[in-house]
Amino acid sequence: MSQADFGRLEIELAEVEMPGLMACRAEFGPSQPLKGARITGSLHMTIQTAVLIETLTALGASVRWCSCNIFSTQDHAAAAIARDSAAVFAWKGETLQEYWWCTERALDWGSEGGPNLIVDDGGDATLLIHEGVKAEEEYEKTGKVPDPTSTDNAEFQIVLAIIRDGLKEDPKKYHKMKERLVGVSEETTTGVKRLYQMQANGTLLFPAINVNDSVTKSKFDNLYGCRHSLPDGLMRATDVMIAGKVAVVCGYGDVGKGCAAALKQAGARVIVTEIDPICALQSLMEGIPVLTLEDVVSEADIFVTTTGNKDIIMVDHMRKMKNNAIVCNIGHFNTEIDMHGLETYPGVKRITIKPQTDRWVFPETGTGIIVLAEGRLMNLGCATGHPSFVMSCSFTNQVIAQLELWKEKTTGKYEKKVYVLPKHLDEKVAALHLGKLGAKLTKLSPEQAAYISVPVEGPYKPPNYRY
Amino acid sequence: MSQADFGRLEIELAEVEMPGLMACRAEFGPSQPLKGARITGSLHMTIQTAVLIETLTALGASVRWCSCNIFSTQDHAAAAIARDSAAVFAWKGETLQEYWWCTERALDWGSEGGPNLIVDDGGDATLLIHEGVKAEEEYEKTGKVPDPTSTDNAEFQIVLAIIRDGLKEDPKKYHKMKERLVGVSEETTTGVKRLYQMQANGTLLFPAINVNDSVTKSKFDNLYGCRHSLPDGLMRATDVMIAGKVAVVCGYGDVGKGCAAALKQAGARVIVTEIDPICALQSLMEGIPVLTLEDVVSEADIFVTTTGNKDIIMVDHMRKMKNNAIVCNIGHFNTEIDMHGLETYPGVKRITIKPQTDRWVFPETGTGIIVLAEGRLMNLGCATGHPSFVMSCSFTNQVIAQLELWKEKTTGKYEKKVYVLPKHLDEKVAALHLGKLGAKLTKLSPEQAAYISVPVEGPYKPPNYRY
Amino acid sequence: MSQADFGRLEIELAEVEMPGLMACRAEFGPSQPLKGARITGSLHMTIQTAVLIETLTALGASVRWCSCNIFSTQDHAAAAIARDSAAVFAWKGETLQEYWWCTERALDWGSEGGPNLIVDDGGDATLLIHEGVKAEEEYEKTGKVPDPTSTDNAEFQIVLAIIRDGLKEDPKKYHKMKERLVGVSEETTTGVKRLYQMQANGTLLFPAINVNDSVTKSKFDNLYGCRHSLPDGLMRATDVMIAGKVAVVCGYGDVGKGCAAALKQAGARVIVTEIDPICALQSLMEGIPVLTLEDVVSEADIFVTTTGNKDIIMVDHMRKMKNNAIVCNIGHFNTEIDMHGLETYPGVKRITIKPQTDRWVFPETGTGIIVLAEGRLMNLGCATGHPSFVMSCSFTNQVIAQLELWKEKTTGKYEKKVYVLPKHLDEKVAALHLGKLGAKLTKLSPEQAAYISVPVEGPYKPPNYRY
Amino acid sequence: MSQADFGRLEIELAEVEMPGLMACRAEFGPSQPLKGARITGSLHMTIQTAVLIETLTALGASVRWCSCNIFSTQDHAAAAIARDSAAVFAWKGETLQEYWWCTERALDWGSEGGPNLIVDDGGDATLLIHEGVKAEEEYEKTGKVPDPTSTDNAEFQIVLAIIRDGLKEDPKKYHKMKERLVGVSEETTTGVKRLYQMQANGTLLFPAINVNDSVTKSKFDNLYGCRHSLPDGLMRATDVMIAGKVAVVCGYGDVGKGCAAALKQAGARVIVTEIDPICALQSLMEGIPVLTLEDVVSEADIFVTTTGNKDIIMVDHMRKMKNNAIVCNIGHFNTEIDMHGLETYPGVKRITIKPQTDRWVFPETGTGIIVLAEGRLMNLGCATGHPSFVMSCSFTNQVIAQLELWKEKTTGKYEKKVYVLPKHLDEKVAALHLGKLGAKLTKLSPEQAAYISVPVEGPYKPPNYRY
Repeated sequence: MSQADFGRLEIELAEVEMPGLMACRAEFGPSQPLKGARITGSLHMTIQTAVLIETLTALGASVRWCSCNIFSTQDHAAAAIARDSAAVFAWKGETLQEYWWCTERALDWGSEGGPNLIVDDGGDATLLIHEGVKAEEEYEKTGKVPDPTSTDNAEFQIVLAIIRDGLKEDPKKYHKMKERLVGVSEETTTGVKRLYQMQANGTLLFPAINVNDSVTKSKFDNLYGCRHSLPDGLMRATDVMIAGKVAVVCGYGDVGKGCAAALKQAGARVIVTEIDPICALQSLMEGIPVLTLEDVVSEADIFVTTTGNKDIIMVDHMRKMKNNAIVCNIGHFNTEIDMHGLETYPGVKRITIKPQTDRWVFPETGTGIIVLAEGRLMNLGCATGHPSFVMSCSFTNQVIAQLELWKEKTTGKYEKKVYVLPKHLDEKVAALHLGKLGAKLTKLSPEQAAYISVPVEGPYKPPNYRY
Repeated sequence: MSQADFGRLEIELAEVEMPGLMACRAEFGPSQPLKGARITGSLHMTIQTAVLIETLTALGASVRWCSCNIFSTQDHAAAAIARDSAAVFAWKGETLQEYWWCTERALDWGSEGGPNLIVDDGGDATLLIHEGVKAEEEYEKTGKVPDPTSTDNAEFQIVLAIIRDGLKEDPKKYHKMKERLVGVSEETTTGVKRLYQMQANGTLLFPAINVNDSVTKSKFDNLYGCRHSLPDGLMRATDVMIAGKVAVVCGYGDVGKGCAAALKQAGARVIVTEIDPICALQSLMEGIPVLTLEDVVSEADIFVTTTGNKDIIMVDHMRKMKNNAIVCNIGHFNTEIDMHGLETYPGVKRITIKPQTDRWVFPETGTGIIVLAEGRLMNLGCATGHPSFVMSCSFTNQVIAQLELWKEKTTGKYEKKVYVLPKHLDEKVAALHLGKLGAKLTKLSPEQAAYISVPVEGPYKPPNYRY
Repeated sequence: MSQADFGRLEIELAEVEMPGLMACRAEFGPSQPLKGARITGSLHMTIQTAVLIETLTALGASVRWCSCNIFSTQDHAAAAIARDSAAVFAWKGETLQEYWWCTERALDWGSEGGPNLIVDDGGDATLLIHEGVKAEEEYEKTGKVPDPTSTDNAEFQIVLAIIRDGLKEDPKKYHKMKERLVGVSEETTTGVKRLYQMQANGTLLFPAINVNDSVTKSKFDNLYGCRHSLPDGLMRATDVMIAGKVAVVCGYGDVGKGCAAALKQAGARVIVTEIDPICALQSLMEGIPVLTLEDVVSEADIFVTTTGNKDIIMVDHMRKMKNNAIVCNIGHFNTEIDMHGLETYPGVKRITIKPQTDRWVFPETGTGIIVLAEGRLMNLGCATGHPSFVMSCSFTNQVIAQLELWKEKTTGKYEKKVYVLPKHLDEKVAALHLGKLGAKLTKLSPEQAAYISVPVEGPYKPPNYRY
Repeated sequence: MSQADFGRLEIELAEVEMPGLMACRAEFGPSQPLKGARITGSLHMTIQTAVLIETLTALGASVRWCSCNIFSTQDHAAAAIARDSAAVFAWKGETLQEYWWCTERALDWGSEGGPNLIVDDGGDATLLIHEGVKAEEEYEKTGKVPDPTSTDNAEFQIVLAIIRDGLKEDPKKYHKMKERLVGVSEETTTGVKRLYQMQANGTLLFPAINVNDSVTKSKFDNLYGCRHSLPDGLMRATDVMIAGKVAVVCGYGDVGKGCAAALKQAGARVIVTEIDPICALQSLMEGIPVLTLEDVVSEADIFVTTTGNKDIIMVDHMRKMKNNAIVCNIGHFNTEIDMHGLETYPGVKRITIKPQTDRWVFPETGTGIIVLAEGRLMNLGCATGHPSFVMSCSFTNQVIAQLELWKEKTTGKYEKKVYVLPKHLDEKVAALHLGKLGAKLTKLSPEQAAYISVPVEGPYKPPNYRY
């Protein structure tokens, strides 16, 4: 619990850096608009998230929380929240088994049944409910329970086992949960992709707000957040000098752009790999060459995956790398680096330098590579994730989404579809963050507003504007 | 005509830098898909445009051309095209009267009536037809002809006079033109805004393809083009050292982002003015403060307008500026700088240093400011506009749009609405430009494509992706 | 001692990043040129220093070591060296009393008397000997022993007490040490300044090699090292988002240039304070304004001192800062920030967030500032200092200087003066670091060498060349 | 003479950008310290030089001027000076014959004999006198006159012919000149190297002040000037898009650093070639790879020579380049690019796109390269050279050097050696340029000055400080 005191001190520092969340408390706190709402969150249990949680509780909600990554919890943040504000099921360095146990715990509101709202990051809480409902339906129809041995994906085996065990207790557990659920707000590219797939397949069980595609999320958190936290993670894990090195960034989306910018500015020679010709051309316009991983695998010093895809850096690539090449991932899931191939490579030797920093030595060459955070999000595993200010943008979107879902819970405004927040709310999130940085906006005159056909108070851009 | 030889040499250099257009010639030239199409273009008559024109003719079209800015024509480009490829009505330094005469000439295909297709930049050719049709309808109904004295906008007076004179010759001239028109492709933010307004008002007379909002246009030409051509224009016009100066960029859209980046990289301290809180926050994340023009008007050395709006820098601002402050515009229209206010300021004295570079001296202080290109596009008035490579992206979109309109001319696919090109064509435009820069794309495996739910061959991003 | 294992793993990683030191081992190890040399080092006891120490021992030397900063020791590095290679007197978080005790211990070679060579950083080991000799002379002449109460500099009181206590044991202790000493090599701007002052005053007791002014030291370690380690320290201590913030860098020498570059690249708006008009003009040419601290004290978010001077940020400045403004020092000594004034400010409250990160709250306003590393070197106190690669440059200069002093110990080549290494050795240090980064040098032809009047093999620049 | 009016307008603009020169006029004008001095200048006859010339005349000097490069004269600047202030022998596009005729004319003060002072750039005026004196001595001893056919350097043949012809008129012409000469101030790396060689050989005939090695010259003009004028020259000559291109910069001295920075910032991928390992390591620390020309000759789009050496890009390199690769030089002399080899390559074809922009087509491949300014200084041949502000720094050093030489003309302070200006004058030059950029210096307190052992008013750095 001394951890809790430390956590509280850092939470207080973070509040000063999170003007959007603090403005929400000031604006909405008095009217308690989330009164009666039970919110389950599955989102990295960091100091910044602590400020989010306490914003939700300040608006009247009850909250239970788990992390969405086994390494991303900051224990002092978790301790402070657990002591002061909400039920927390998260610690740094969970096993996968523990991870899904935590997720299940955060969804379980005891006799109250389940949450009304979900704050999701990557979609694991949403996934568990959807898989649970599917299994319950199968069980109702056929009496069959989920069989973990039916998959060789180790993580999904755990999910199935949890659902199977739940079925025994209550064969309607996830159905009841689904019924109570007003909706989810999801903040990652990866989680959103899942939601749109479910919408397309007609399997989405409740409304979803896509917070990721708020401009103030994807063009800020993903870009500027990673620009900050990628070098932070590299430095804390390895103390490597970035200047002079050759760094490969796989993917040049928002996350990749932030990573490439950070590495370039620090004096690395950056190379990008891309599948998308438009993003590739953007990279070239910034002076960053676009090549394939095969072209550069044996020359580069640092490799970062940012694709959101799978099978990006395979063990066969890793074997060809220079001694002590650094391999890490900053995309949401640990699918980008072939950790399974590495772990099962015959004769490979793992030397743990320190937690989340492992050197893997290949038997043929005796040379090794350094893998960060076991292939999971290195900025959260090896450092403290994105800084408070940019997370304030993301989380203010989350709060606004939760308010919107709860306000409209009975109006039918939101169907079982995926929605983005309207642009004027996106602009509002940005506006809440300008004062802290000393900015002053220009005001449109009515004549100017008419000339460009926008309202004086905004929104100022058409929906398809790219920023 | 020695100008034509010089123009031809520069056109040949530009062809090497415009791989998208040359690829179109290679792919489509043999089948002559634009055969029979009469295309009128209203677009800066530069070397790059010459390569566009000759791509259109290489695909079978007949072409007539005018510029869309009184200062933007490169006379050697015009000479080469006039001699070799198409009818051209454009020269550097037109009067407004001459400008609209040129526009009318480019639209007049004699006995053939009018163009089938328009390539537009800013929308002046489209405007003339719409205003002409409106006047003819009024005339048919009421017998009234347009009265230039009914407006005090000097330029619109000229437009009305031209339409009035046309009415006398043929009271159905613009109606006939409208009937023949298959559609227009428009490439500027400004022109597109006009089209969407007409669509909203139900007054759009023919289909339009919005080329501006192709990613390979607005995120390339606007951004990287201006990053190149703003300092080019400043240097050619004034030879001013940018390093150490304070520069104000009004507007932080794509054009403003390019301008701010160029000035910052050259060593200026940049300040942005913005109305939109999201763009303002982007500026701050790049280390560029956001203030109002009033805050900085007396301290800055260079002022650039990029807003697409009007009344940005007024004569009252200019009076307060430092001696020899440079004032210029790189937005499409000359509405951003209050040239009328400056010209009519009591006692102001204009000293022309060289064409498009004027020093205006205020009588109270004896100090002067330097205005570029009379408040019009400074990169085209004082330099040669955007470089060939980035214009190849924009113009390849134009060619693809023209092909699409002409191919579907009788299918009814395109109604009297505004369309954007489908993403796979946008990606194709980018792909055509990668080889020249030595880039190699990574190929998705079918498993990877399935994992992220895109076709192996693209398109790779959802429609709302912002890049 | 598990710390020692961890230290050893990190030392092995660092060796790969320190090609200059490893090349020294390969080139000189077999001939054992430092055989018989007793070396005392007073230099941050980090992983990188561990590689230096083991290079010295690999060349035949015996070594005793202390740190030159109370917070800079990495305990796992110290543990590994203590176990495997040399006597170490250093731990993270020494008191000043302990610090000087360690220095004295490192100089005390027991019956062997004292070191033959000193590796110094900041000059504290050299200072202790000089002060010791001075006191012994005074004592011999007058019988007076040093009186700690004669100064109100708390640290110097400790120095005097140690010398006084030493006098009692052996009134010739420092004289004997001086006699045995072949020389010192010193690597900081600050320590070198002291040496030149002693040379000017005629009080320097032994030869000194100024390693700091090797180009491969001051233009690399100071500049690129700080560019790396300043943001590293800020992030580890505070997790603050640098983008969007206003940062003041006091001083624009090599260290200041590195700091300003890092902050600017991370998206801060940087302001420099300077006394030197040339450095000020350099700052302006990079787009960084030069103002006084008073101008900006209440607007900035981050303050960094890099001057090597004293009394830069006084408590009166700190009182006027924004809430949670960050104040830190990256200059060698803790003289730049007025910690004494802060600590004794009436009613001030210190809240330790975590070690080396303190929030100081002023009673009048209730707002606080965050001071890093108690005003000492923040990159070593809050992070791990400069990365291995750039320290390899610095330390290779140290090794070469030690070799040179030892080789010439009896030839009289070096008098009691300050020397810099010849340029061909400086170039050699650089050359040893190129291969690791994949660089290939061009070779001069004899004709080219003659044309520019340099030897084909270098040195390539005149002595006064500035790089 | 309308050219003169235009020149005068631009001179007036430049005066506002040249605060150092204008401050010299204000400080020294009243006392006319150059009264009686006859100054010959051999320095690019640009607008900036015009302000220098009129500063010298404002201080009392009589001036005759020629350019030091056949392409660098701005005719309107020359016209204005010729009309208003001094004798000028320079025009854009001289032949080599004309160039040396101009140099001889500028040195010929008729019955007054020769100049008292020389302002030199590259050392051609100094060279002519030294060669003249040598020839006269030979003639006096042996009766032999210089034989142009004794060399196959075409330019040196011209020099010898001019001296030969002069000998016939007056066999003591250059001896008389030498006698009258108080000294020369020289401002280029190249010219200074010649002076030090003559000093080393004992052949220097009069005192010389090395203005190049003032910090406010070499670290400003060479670095920031080229950062500005390299892209300016590229754009004006070729309109090429720099973003996305591969650019090779040969040499990473001050000029190379400026060029590489400019190209990188504009979005090129830059590669450096270097002989000096220290400069090479600096390049790597900025993320710029160091390779040999052979490694990259067939992949790069732009080649820039900055070495001050000879035979950098040979015709054999040029043959291997991509079609329309751009080859240019920004080092002082046209020795870097093998123009002779190119011109005499069998079957090569030269196509002049416009003056100073030639396409050379090789017969084997039919592909061509684009050579700027015939291998001479491209920033002066294709654009207008460095901007006024940075030239104000360089030229203020020149003025101060001329004042110093003239003031000490009879005191014997300066021997026949090469001198640099003392640091306090260097700092003064910088200080004169701060106000224009809105900078405010911090003042040292006496205690601080004592602590770092410098005078309160400076100079602030030791002589070997590198900035």
